[in-house]
Amino acid sequence: MKNLKGACIFGQSGGPTSVINASAAGVFLEALKQENITEIYGAEHGIRGILEEKFFDIRKEDVHELELLKNTPSSELGSVRYKLKDVSVDDTDYKRLLEVFKKYNIRYFFYNGGNDSMDTCNKISKFLQSVKYECNVIGVPKTIDNDLATTDHCPGYGSAARYVATTCMEVYKDMSVYDTPLICVIEVMGRNAGWLTAASKLASVGGFGPDLIYLPEKDFDIDKFLNDVKALKEKKNHVMVCVSEGIHDKNGKLIAESFNDVSHDSFGHAQLGGVASGLGNLLKEKLGCKVRSIEFSLMQRCGAHVGSGRDIEEAFNAGSEAVKAACRGETDKMVCFKRTKEDYAIEYILLDVALAANAEKKVPLEWINEEGNDVKDEFVKYALPLIQGDPKFPLENNLPRFARLKKVYVK
Amino acid sequence: MKNLKGACIFGQSGGPTSVINASAAGVFLEALKQENITEIYGAEHGIRGILEEKFFDIRKEDVHELELLKNTPSSELGSVRYKLKDVSVDDTDYKRLLEVFKKYNIRYFFYNGGNDSMDTCNKISKFLQSVKYECNVIGVPKTIDNDLATTDHCPGYGSAARYVATTCMEVYKDMSVYDTPLICVIEVMGRNAGWLTAASKLASVGGFGPDLIYLPEKDFDIDKFLNDVKALKEKKNHVMVCVSEGIHDKNGKLIAESFNDVSHDSFGHAQLGGVASGLGNLLKEKLGCKVRSIEFSLMQRCGAHVGSGRDIEEAFNAGSEAVKAACRGETDKMVCFKRTKEDYAIEYILLDVALAANAEKKVPLEWINEEGNDVKDEFVKYALPLIQGDPKFPLENNLPRFARLKKVYVK
Repeated sequence: MKNLKGACIFGQSGGPTSVINASAAGVFLEALKQENITEIYGAEHGIRGILEEKFFDIRKEDVHELELLKNTPSSELGSVRYKLKDVSVDDTDYKRLLEVFKKYNIRYFFYNGGNDSMDTCNKISKFLQSVKYECNVIGVPKTIDNDLATTDHCPGYGSAARYVATTCMEVYKDMSVYDTPLICVIEVMGRNAGWLTAASKLASVGGFGPDLIYLPEKDFDIDKFLNDVKALKEKKNHVMVCVSEGIHDKNGKLIAESFNDVSHDSFGHAQLGGVASGLGNLLKEKLGCKVRSIEFSLMQRCGAHVGSGRDIEEAFNAGSEAVKAACRGETDKMVCFKRTKEDYAIEYILLDVALAANAEKKVPLEWINEEGNDVKDEFVKYALPLIQGDPKFPLENNLPRFARLKKVYVK
Repeated sequence: MKNLKGACIFGQSGGPTSVINASAAGVFLEALKQENITEIYGAEHGIRGILEEKFFDIRKEDVHELELLKNTPSSELGSVRYKLKDVSVDDTDYKRLLEVFKKYNIRYFFYNGGNDSMDTCNKISKFLQSVKYECNVIGVPKTIDNDLATTDHCPGYGSAARYVATTCMEVYKDMSVYDTPLICVIEVMGRNAGWLTAASKLASVGGFGPDLIYLPEKDFDIDKFLNDVKALKEKKNHVMVCVSEGIHDKNGKLIAESFNDVSHDSFGHAQLGGVASGLGNLLKEKLGCKVRSIEFSLMQRCGAHVGSGRDIEEAFNAGSEAVKAACRGETDKMVCFKRTKEDYAIEYILLDVALAANAEKKVPLEWINEEGNDVKDEFVKYALPLIQGDPKFPLENNLPRFARLKKVYVK
């Protein structure tokens, strides 16, 4: 719908990344330029903030602080994991949402998140169409998991990948100082897709990378794993292993579950963790040498200080492109990246948001070696361009200067 | 001993830091300038390399690569934890050392490490004096623990402190995104001294710091701890707690030991870890809310990419000052930092190495609050100057470009 005049609202959803706020900056700063956009709202805790009428008046913020969002990790407006029921099952939320949209004349809706958030985006878009409420809906991708279908890569991935690669290099230096044997098992996030764990391979480009890499794309066999490590340990004193939190056996059972009770989030996803520690204990027991288990934990998704400049820029552009597209009359789409030059150029394109909703893009099996314990050059060619660009990070007292928003609620 | 002509040897000992190689660069680049220094050797794995005649010919290295050591974390020559017996108990190692020193005409000995390494340095110095072998011995301090007596602070601390402060800020942003309660327990290194854990307080200068901080300088009471967290949780959704790995109860028993078996290193020090995870499980059980336990693990001592520029510079200078002092005829000393201006200037001074050997400097009790769950402004005034200066980190492919030494063994 072209020339739609009204307010816009933007929400952040799902696990935070280093650059989700860069997309927020892109949305807000572009919205400020658009004549058809009247008010600019930031929903607190995503869809929940809309349902509860809790949103911030972005026009009350200093533009300089909005620009600082580019280097502020995490979800500044607050995030949410809230699963909208299918409208045919329960339309309560949808009706409430329509009520709020009407009350504030919201005509532009931007939602930033991963697969689940694109599903939310898609459902809302389809519902609004069905009731003929004119509102342009555009999804803005983000996820450190890099598992959204239809886009070459996802904002958030490049920065997390640079964190993983840089940190692996540093840890490799650290673990190699003594001449006594040491095995280091590093656990990287990634439930079903191994993109971020594979990024540890980029540390090898820097000269100090892991010896073994295990992704959830291939079944994990504990005996094979023990043999892999044992064989290497006979050749060299220090062995670095990177494993995805989501590795599983041939029956699909999570390796994490072999060691721990696993709880579930509100989407029914297993809350993982403890794979490195479990495998580490096993190695100690079976190989009888010193083992260090390390989890990159939250740091890998919030380590903005070592983010990818390119990722920040693209995340920002994804936000501004979403606003431009909506103002051109586009709706029901997600902003996607199309790689037009291998090393390296992209175009911002729009594809149906339904295509990304709940679909998962995994690391191609042909990018993983036969043995399932390393990734190939094809992966490096794909990923290395994504970690380029050293961001100019504003500092105060030599510490990050994060955005400080006023967060004035709309009455 | 002035105008001593001969070879110099430099060794690295103990746990690595981000800047121990910056001191190596300082030693090597200054030694290259000194006329009285003939050969320049880098001992592989510290004192062990000397005993086994395994050392590298530093004159064969490219000067550019030696300069890159400034930004290369960890111990490039290899480190060691090797405790010299008292000479009166067993003088085998001392005799062997003397043999090697004579064979290569080693007249300058520089040793880089913490308390234990200064003890080694002191013992060797005293032995060489006792046998009237002329050799100038200077200790170069380093330790992320910042616990060396006689120096205002230690090379390595500032960089680790900047890592801890920056990462706490980022994790704080990340843990605060949902409106459901979350307690985050972060474990920081520091066996008996809480300097590095206290550095988490600097994150508050940046606006996003921990709510509670527990150092090993005060006895830790689990019930008090649970009450502290509970009281805060009633006021705010997200509580960040930083604990030192070395916290202990009033009987001196490590809290880590309540949860885990603890192994010991060759100095008899307990190998800690698992405090965050143990306390986290306890909080889950007692307060029934979501808890995330995070260990900063090796990353806090090798995170050179977020090091302190001032720390790197001072570590480099500590190395070069050691060489200058030895060439002036000084021996049996450690290079120390004397703060001459609170905010901020230092002088490099020399004090007897025996004073630093095995002595531990702890956080003054008057810098810790009454309740023992926070540190005061005095600490911030002391530590904030130490994390200043954003290092110009050389990058290749936007990844760290670490030094690549040839490491040619001396035959």
